Amino acid sequence: MKLVRHGLAGREKPGLIDAQGRIRDLSAHLADIAGAALAPAVLADLAALDPATLPLVAEGTRLGPCVSGTGKFVCIGLNFSDHAAESGMAVPPEPVVFMKATSAISGPHDDVPIPRGASKTDWEVELAIIIGRTAKYVSEADALDYVAGYCICNDVSEREFQLERAGQWTKGKSCDGFGPIGPWLVTRDEIPDPQNLAMWLTVNGETLQNGSTRTMVFGAAYLVSYLSQFMSLHPGDIISTGTPPGVGLGFKPPRYLKAGDVVELGIEGLGTQRQIFVSDI
Amino acid sequence: MKLVRHGLAGREKPGLIDAQGRIRDLSAHLADIAGAALAPAVLADLAALDPATLPLVAEGTRLGPCVSGTGKFVCIGLNFSDHAAESGMAVPPEPVVFMKATSAISGPHDDVPIPRGASKTDWEVELAIIIGRTAKYVSEADALDYVAGYCICNDVSEREFQLERAGQWTKGKSCDGFGPIGPWLVTRDEIPDPQNLAMWLTVNGETLQNGSTRTMVFGAAYLVSYLSQFMSLHPGDIISTGTPPGVGLGFKPPRYLKAGDVVELGIEGLGTQRQIFVSDI
Repeated sequence: MKLVRHGLAGREKPGLIDAQGRIRDLSAHLADIAGAALAPAVLADLAALDPATLPLVAEGTRLGPCVSGTGKFVCIGLNFSDHAAESGMAVPPEPVVFMKATSAISGPHDDVPIPRGASKTDWEVELAIIIGRTAKYVSEADALDYVAGYCICNDVSEREFQLERAGQWTKGKSCDGFGPIGPWLVTRDEIPDPQNLAMWLTVNGETLQNGSTRTMVFGAAYLVSYLSQFMSLHPGDIISTGTPPGVGLGFKPPRYLKAGDVVELGIEGLGTQRQIFVSDI
Repeated sequence: MKLVRHGLAGREKPGLIDAQGRIRDLSAHLADIAGAALAPAVLADLAALDPATLPLVAEGTRLGPCVSGTGKFVCIGLNFSDHAAESGMAVPPEPVVFMKATSAISGPHDDVPIPRGASKTDWEVELAIIIGRTAKYVSEADALDYVAGYCICNDVSEREFQLERAGQWTKGKSCDGFGPIGPWLVTRDEIPDPQNLAMWLTVNGETLQNGSTRTMVFGAAYLVSYLSQFMSLHPGDIISTGTPPGVGLGFKPPRYLKAGDVVELGIEGLGTQRQIFVSDI
């Protein structure tokens, strides 16, 4: 099942994608794709609906981020060995964890503002995990039971803010619009093996990232279990699992985004995103 | 005005502290101390109420975190020159920014679980800023206009998780209960100069931190302005502004918390917190 949130920013309604790829409205069945609606029993009820009985949503309707009520937006750094190498950093002995601000979350096709003063805005196609029920001290074997599904995340990063402005990465990861999420929350049953998904990203049509979740250092189940040793994971929490090689920082010389650039990205089974980067005047 | 949230965890109601120090219930006037309720006009309406007309809340009622709906919990590292020195780190040229998980937020007197596997759990008394209206690209001169008020935060930290477990500080800052907030949200009008507040912390009655916000490297107005250059700040967001010397990490040898330890902390004009640290079995 592919769940979406459709409508104007901040006023999205829940929906799903039918077999013909059209949006069907779920407002009669739940308030939002958030919190308790991500529990396995609720997802099973939604999967039992006949999409043909649900109202069609007008073509061209905006898609918002595919999940709401996100309490934390956790990211894993340097989780592909080749990306660590291109960043000039070692593969870490255990997951590197940082956070993006939840205020960075945006829709999959929304414009992304390049912040004032930014000169090194970069892209990162990533597999994101969406938590479905509260997880604390869970084993790797059980970890995926706590996952509602998956989506694409573009972990947009301003490298000067991240790496050259003192301390921790937060400043370069949390700018408004730096977390496009979606287009769909694809429920776990449709992704039996999250560690075998092709992933790619283009800038102005040129393919710059072309990898697979197969080369992740720490896989989805490991990450959910690992994080749950440090903090409770709650429904709607997002874990973005790191990016394969091909980010702008890794080119010699580096390549960064400017206003007008178009970034498209996709992951096998999870759809595609497309963003235009714009000035934040 | 001193705003509080009183009642069982997750079911707190809004209140205020009257001139006699008693809790008065505000449920008839607003749903929660959160979001739009933090706007200047709403705070002015609340300040105009006669506390004697508000229902008294039973003595001994639990206080929850003094604000709800926090989208991000931003922290500033190494923001007191003496604390940077005791941590063996340089005073940064600009603010060091990291995040605590919002799931770490707890009440000012709640027990704090020491996570499984933790051996270096530490304390940090900090002045926290609570944002009252959305701030983006604001100047230092205007910055405090966006602040609803102030409270105490104990930026509880597990130093091994923070510093010895690969990469960024998030893992050691975000454990459940590691963010006691309160007891009160003291509105800005009561704190005309946030840079001249005594602050202290004791462990089992022994004073270990004894400082003042006067020695902060970057003050409250600067921090709000600075952060707003990187990301929008929203009502209910918390900015914890760093700790003075005297944390466990700074002792030779270091001193850390064990189950049964009692931590008390206070800031001039903002009340006191008291936590018992417990095993998380």
